Amino acid sequence: MGRMLLQEGANYPVETWVMENDSECPAAHLCHHFVKGDIRNYEDVVAFGLHLDLITIEIESVNVDALEHLEGLGKKIIPRPAVLRTIKNKILQKEFYKSLSIPSPDFVVTQTRSGLDNFKDFLPAVHKIAEGGYDGRGVQLMHTVADFNKGFDAPSVLEKMVDIQTEIAITVAIGQDGSMAIFPAVEMVVNNQLNLLDFQLCPANIDEKTRWKAEAMALQVAKGFGSPGLYAVEMLVCRDGKVWVNETAPRVHNSGHHTIEAHITSQYDMLWRIMLNYPLGAVTMIKPSALVNLIGEPGHSGEACYKGLVNLLGMENVYIHIYGKTQTKPGRKMGHVTILGNDRVELMMKSRQVKELIAVEALTK
Amino acid sequence: MGRMLLQEGANYPVETWVMENDSECPAAHLCHHFVKGDIRNYEDVVAFGLHLDLITIEIESVNVDALEHLEGLGKKIIPRPAVLRTIKNKILQKEFYKSLSIPSPDFVVTQTRSGLDNFKDFLPAVHKIAEGGYDGRGVQLMHTVADFNKGFDAPSVLEKMVDIQTEIAITVAIGQDGSMAIFPAVEMVVNNQLNLLDFQLCPANIDEKTRWKAEAMALQVAKGFGSPGLYAVEMLVCRDGKVWVNETAPRVHNSGHHTIEAHITSQYDMLWRIMLNYPLGAVTMIKPSALVNLIGEPGHSGEACYKGLVNLLGMENVYIHIYGKTQTKPGRKMGHVTILGNDRVELMMKSRQVKELIAVEALTK
Repeated sequence: MGRMLLQEGANYPVETWVMENDSECPAAHLCHHFVKGDIRNYEDVVAFGLHLDLITIEIESVNVDALEHLEGLGKKIIPRPAVLRTIKNKILQKEFYKSLSIPSPDFVVTQTRSGLDNFKDFLPAVHKIAEGGYDGRGVQLMHTVADFNKGFDAPSVLEKMVDIQTEIAITVAIGQDGSMAIFPAVEMVVNNQLNLLDFQLCPANIDEKTRWKAEAMALQVAKGFGSPGLYAVEMLVCRDGKVWVNETAPRVHNSGHHTIEAHITSQYDMLWRIMLNYPLGAVTMIKPSALVNLIGEPGHSGEACYKGLVNLLGMENVYIHIYGKTQTKPGRKMGHVTILGNDRVELMMKSRQVKELIAVEALTK
Repeated sequence: MGRMLLQEGANYPVETWVMENDSECPAAHLCHHFVKGDIRNYEDVVAFGLHLDLITIEIESVNVDALEHLEGLGKKIIPRPAVLRTIKNKILQKEFYKSLSIPSPDFVVTQTRSGLDNFKDFLPAVHKIAEGGYDGRGVQLMHTVADFNKGFDAPSVLEKMVDIQTEIAITVAIGQDGSMAIFPAVEMVVNNQLNLLDFQLCPANIDEKTRWKAEAMALQVAKGFGSPGLYAVEMLVCRDGKVWVNETAPRVHNSGHHTIEAHITSQYDMLWRIMLNYPLGAVTMIKPSALVNLIGEPGHSGEACYKGLVNLLGMENVYIHIYGKTQTKPGRKMGHVTILGNDRVELMMKSRQVKELIAVEALTK
């Protein structure tokens, strides 16, 4: 995320600083100044932020106490640290939706694994660890009580399973002056084995009424946080027509990668506009698009190679983004491919073709 | 140019090295490794190139002897040094067109200023210094013999003035495997005072027959150089329908900036595809576009500020690229603005609006 934000940032009059523990990380060589440091460490974050004008994040795991300290010193932080505090804890996030009366699947809180035993009647449900889950980690499906032994022995939410027809995501931009923009909904096709996005389509295949409902909800969530920023609101559309908010990412997000080529303003450009207090850009779609993540192949760990890359680049209207991570491992996000097309059928066909053509493998297993 | 090439390069699996004399130059912080060195200096260029797999240039003034030495050692250089040798000397460049029977305005060679006296009958004409001219420097219009005192006292060409209706440019891509792609012609509106591009429109307003002729000529020029690369061929369309080649840049070029947003494949993406031996991308136009250069205001030298930037960003379908040069001076290229539109009239109106809205000034004169 940081890498693509910096690619776009090079169009604006800004001087950029990046902090990460790995000095070979994808963003390290695309900024003016790279600082090696741990984003989870209070002292590192405070020391890094002290001389900056404005701070943003590409992942929620940044030390929030440090950000709040910096905010107290008058630093501008987008999104505000309070937003991160709510979002990085799934219990607080669920309570936030509840406090705003935003539909989100029913839930109960569990503190220990054995605590699940009190909620046999709540099944089928999804157990989600309150803190530290990411990209499918920290989520377990609970169909019967036999699944309780897979539950988390830590503060978690147990969420009622809903009968999902379509998973969608809507990104909302909130400017420093309160201006708002809503990107068209995208539809996610999930790989159930890895619990990772398989591919994504834009626009989502939902009827107009559902779209209105979803957009209004996404806007309500984003405004509810009371902070400028970019909010990717993930939602579940059910067979009965209900729309639920699943979770929100207060930052540039996987579900917005396609905006680089397929929309007038990309999510990265939009975040710069928010941060620099420029007018928000137009979210207009230029062409329908599909997004395929490039994921490290199972059984492959080591120096990454991109098998089939040349064939892929022989396809028309296909864009590749390789994140420059030197090491691949199973399930690791290594890049993405955006496909522009005229309709859903063409995009689905091409997405499958892309997935067959390219594989991220290790040079030596 | 290097900056935008690096922004695009971050999508591919490459490790980038940049050499420039100024460690604050726009490209310095967007590469993996920056080397301070003089691109005109033989030793610097050889030392820089020795450990690289592939080398390209963003300006013709790179030391060609050094590049030829590196080529002799087996380094891949795109474009080949022989191309640069021809192009950076206007006498050789004109002789190259002549040798291929490509129409280019008639010319004679002068070695000294007084040598102009032999060519009184050749007026009106344009005197162009053979080496070192750039962006309007090194060019003098000779209407009458009274203008001879403005001529160059160095090897130059004296070129017959032609009755220009439209200036156009066509970029041709030549892959390592000989594959070819021709970007749609762009039309240049020149500011005669600064002898710099005022704004540019794509597609060019030329009839189909002229377009065919121009594309065939551009292709012939690019193939004539016998090297893979990207060639921006500047041409003059005359009132009598004749088309002349003016000059060629064997690299990413100002006339191709609009391709970032307005075409399926940008010129920068295309050059990476050529260098990495990937299939060439589609040159298809997504939308008609205009390009406005951001030029340092007359009378302003010093730390750059972008007056009107916020208003500009309030316009729809307008993209800004600021090159990150800290110092502005009169006539210096500081960035560009791309405008997407539906037709020529809208684009011309918006171009003028952009030029009125924004100005690159110095913080303190």
